[in-house]
Amino acid sequence: IDINADAGESFGPWRMGSDAALFPLLTSVNLAAGFHAGDPLAMLAAVELAKEHGVAVGVHPGFPDLVGFGRRDMEVTPEHVYTDVLYQIGALSAFLKARRMSLHHVKPHGALYNRATRHAQVARAIADAVRDYDPELPLVVLAGSLSERVAREAGTRVAPEAFPDRAYLPDGTLAPRSMKGALLHDPDRAAERAVSMALEGRVAAHDGQAVSLRPETLCIHGDNPEAPAIARAIRQALTTKGVTVIAY
Amino acid sequence: IDINADAGESFGPWRMGSDAALFPLLTSVNLAAGFHAGDPLAMLAAVELAKEHGVAVGVHPGFPDLVGFGRRDMEVTPEHVYTDVLYQIGALSAFLKARRMSLHHVKPHGALYNRATRHAQVARAIADAVRDYDPELPLVVLAGSLSERVAREAGTRVAPEAFPDRAYLPDGTLAPRSMKGALLHDPDRAAERAVSMALEGRVAAHDGQAVSLRPETLCIHGDNPEAPAIARAIRQALTTKGVTVIAY
Amino acid sequence: IDINADAGESFGPWRMGSDAALFPLLTSVNLAAGFHAGDPLAMLAAVELAKEHGVAVGVHPGFPDLVGFGRRDMEVTPEHVYTDVLYQIGALSAFLKARRMSLHHVKPHGALYNRATRHAQVARAIADAVRDYDPELPLVVLAGSLSERVAREAGTRVAPEAFPDRAYLPDGTLAPRSMKGALLHDPDRAAERAVSMALEGRVAAHDGQAVSLRPETLCIHGDNPEAPAIARAIRQALTTKGVTVIAY
Amino acid sequence: IDINADAGESFGPWRMGSDAALFPLLTSVNLAAGFHAGDPLAMLAAVELAKEHGVAVGVHPGFPDLVGFGRRDMEVTPEHVYTDVLYQIGALSAFLKARRMSLHHVKPHGALYNRATRHAQVARAIADAVRDYDPELPLVVLAGSLSERVAREAGTRVAPEAFPDRAYLPDGTLAPRSMKGALLHDPDRAAERAVSMALEGRVAAHDGQAVSLRPETLCIHGDNPEAPAIARAIRQALTTKGVTVIAY
Repeated sequence: IDINADAGESFGPWRMGSDAALFPLLTSVNLAAGFHAGDPLAMLAAVELAKEHGVAVGVHPGFPDLVGFGRRDMEVTPEHVYTDVLYQIGALSAFLKARRMSLHHVKPHGALYNRATRHAQVARAIADAVRDYDPELPLVVLAGSLSERVAREAGTRVAPEAFPDRAYLPDGTLAPRSMKGALLHDPDRAAERAVSMALEGRVAAHDGQAVSLRPETLCIHGDNPEAPAIARAIRQALTTKGVTVIAY
Repeated sequence: IDINADAGESFGPWRMGSDAALFPLLTSVNLAAGFHAGDPLAMLAAVELAKEHGVAVGVHPGFPDLVGFGRRDMEVTPEHVYTDVLYQIGALSAFLKARRMSLHHVKPHGALYNRATRHAQVARAIADAVRDYDPELPLVVLAGSLSERVAREAGTRVAPEAFPDRAYLPDGTLAPRSMKGALLHDPDRAAERAVSMALEGRVAAHDGQAVSLRPETLCIHGDNPEAPAIARAIRQALTTKGVTVIAY
Repeated sequence: IDINADAGESFGPWRMGSDAALFPLLTSVNLAAGFHAGDPLAMLAAVELAKEHGVAVGVHPGFPDLVGFGRRDMEVTPEHVYTDVLYQIGALSAFLKARRMSLHHVKPHGALYNRATRHAQVARAIADAVRDYDPELPLVVLAGSLSERVAREAGTRVAPEAFPDRAYLPDGTLAPRSMKGALLHDPDRAAERAVSMALEGRVAAHDGQAVSLRPETLCIHGDNPEAPAIARAIRQALTTKGVTVIAY
Repeated sequence: IDINADAGESFGPWRMGSDAALFPLLTSVNLAAGFHAGDPLAMLAAVELAKEHGVAVGVHPGFPDLVGFGRRDMEVTPEHVYTDVLYQIGALSAFLKARRMSLHHVKPHGALYNRATRHAQVARAIADAVRDYDPELPLVVLAGSLSERVAREAGTRVAPEAFPDRAYLPDGTLAPRSMKGALLHDPDRAAERAVSMALEGRVAAHDGQAVSLRPETLCIHGDNPEAPAIARAIRQALTTKGVTVIAY
């Protein structure tokens, strides 16, 4: 299984995250591409850091909303989604090409990721953009969600994802960040959930119900101060159970 | 010789230029990529229009300055120039890749283009970005300028350019737009200058002195209302003189 | 009754609307303030044009979304709405103060205006911002809507508004722009509806049902090419019926 | 004498500076207004913090350049400068008005501040904007510079400023940040220079030559990690010498 985290989220004079501490613990990263975070200098720096650590690089396209960090839902047309995603895929790919690397995957960010789990047209526009860019390029989708179903129908390659450090609703979607306990801070509990996701294909929702999912990648939240500790705990727990941690 | 024009300069709800009228008269276009003009929807529309008319597509990277349309000089570091140019190359390339087209060239826009004719470090950062992206990709440079010399030294492929509809200073640089007569409006005079540039390798500066240049491409200003008339006149004059008008 | 229109919607190098043709036909204008349209130069130009024509100037705060022209709904917090509205009120007020004019009213733009007719918290955040800035300043609200009720509760001064050139739903909200016939183009029909709104306090919804409303101001869409003709027709029809057309 | 610092420089999800630690040590602050830093939420938060600490609030207008934090020089027209400054004055003033506070001064930021010390037209456009907004409003200018002379000619009220934590060139302008030693980190040395500036009206340039200046306010760099220590040292040194530290 793969362990991914969002990264490259600095912008201009402002720093965010602890990429240098986190990259050695991951197998893939999702780099912001300028719409919700990540100016060109920050993108190149993150690409070079990923190269140094041998981490696979994906792009993390988001809504055009710096102030809201791409976390505010927007009522976008499928045409806007399709072109915004292509634009951001290309922008990040240029830095990879210039450093002789390849784009490993596409993972939508924040409110765009969530909107695709509720609106088939948005999910389809994202899936079309990824497939039209490169039919072999994997699109990271919430395991078991509408966005996974729509992307498969579109003929886009998918990489289903689960979140060991986020609470789930019984329908398999993520508990909103505004909900108490939505973000887990205990490394041991996150590691336990990661093992359950990877080996048993299920996780307990916040009310105790079992949610089924078949993830190929597990996401750690890089903006969580405990992110490095959580990544370390998950990695060790998986390895102990005999699961190979490697990019898909 | 090639005839190029800037295009794809609409943004959000705002229209600019007359791309549909101009594209049939050109052999290549330089499309804005979001920094000074050109949002993702406008970029895809311009790419599709270019495909329809069989016009070669280049990217037109500019300063990050929508309000000033990339025409205000900025004191940028070479690192900013290098990464801003790569970013914009990639963003446009994604639309071309999705429509099974290839990027034909890179031509810096406005104040960035001009800054590269005066600052070797800026010229070098642009040339490095283009070459690191693809060593076969031509960079359009002002024929005979510092930016041409620096790009050749960097090992970047170049396509020297001349401007039949712009006044020249005796040193071979363009007269600033604020100067009276900087932009020519008479199609016949522009056509005459185009022939002189293409066949004799020279043009008269605004004070009458001869400027030597060896262009592979001639630029028409798309924001000039007379642009279609000028393009038509130049094309006809060149063809009459036996010059083949074709993308390099 | 007052006749208003949105204006000052140019941005950087891009023009929009026909302010010079429209201003002589209006009694008040709503000027964009940089978030969805209207850069500082355009704002000052519009303020000076309004002064020349003796038109009352209001501010037209919108979502921070240039590409979408403030017409895409955004899931904003009340804190964002409150501060975004205050920011835009202040920005426009500075140009008025510098030209010895006063701010006449506040009218939210596009998706923000519509969101306030559906979300009490958004309506309240807008109303609080206007009242905290100046308790005498009128806030333009959709006549008969949730945003009118909430603003009155907040102790904000209101100016109810109706739209003679837009189709209505039976619940008194505007038909979405995506609906066929949402925007009327016939000056005579718009004039007829204006008279019915101003004198009878009602208008027919798109399905024929009567909608009751008590407007103090009527809005013309400045981006409608027929806007000047519609404004002229409405003004004449109202005057003929003995209604004085004047800013509130 | 007054002690000021730049503040309110967070943006969206990104934090900058240590406003809460610094405000108790200052008599006035210069708050960013959205062009180079400072989104509306951050502006209101900084205004409320200033109110809590009884600190006088000025606005810190900058170039429209978030990525470059307003530190990259731009070749702007006087019209752009005039309208950009008015816009930012107004935007911040709205938050002050809503919290029953008054705007205390205007201090241009970064590259705009520096450009005004070299270009009379830029200095004049800033001075005109401040005076047209309010003839009683002080404009902070580099003591002894071109911008001070031009502002006085324009009839704008001025508050000359000196920088105890920055190196000076012999002509009285600031050493560029790219120069080694441009920013002082030693609180005692900064305090010594502050006393010399306030009591003797002079300071040593980086080459030892004496520069004459008559400051009414001393600026501390808030982005300097030593800022609180420097502010404390300066305050104590001035008080010991019998200088009252108070906003002008």
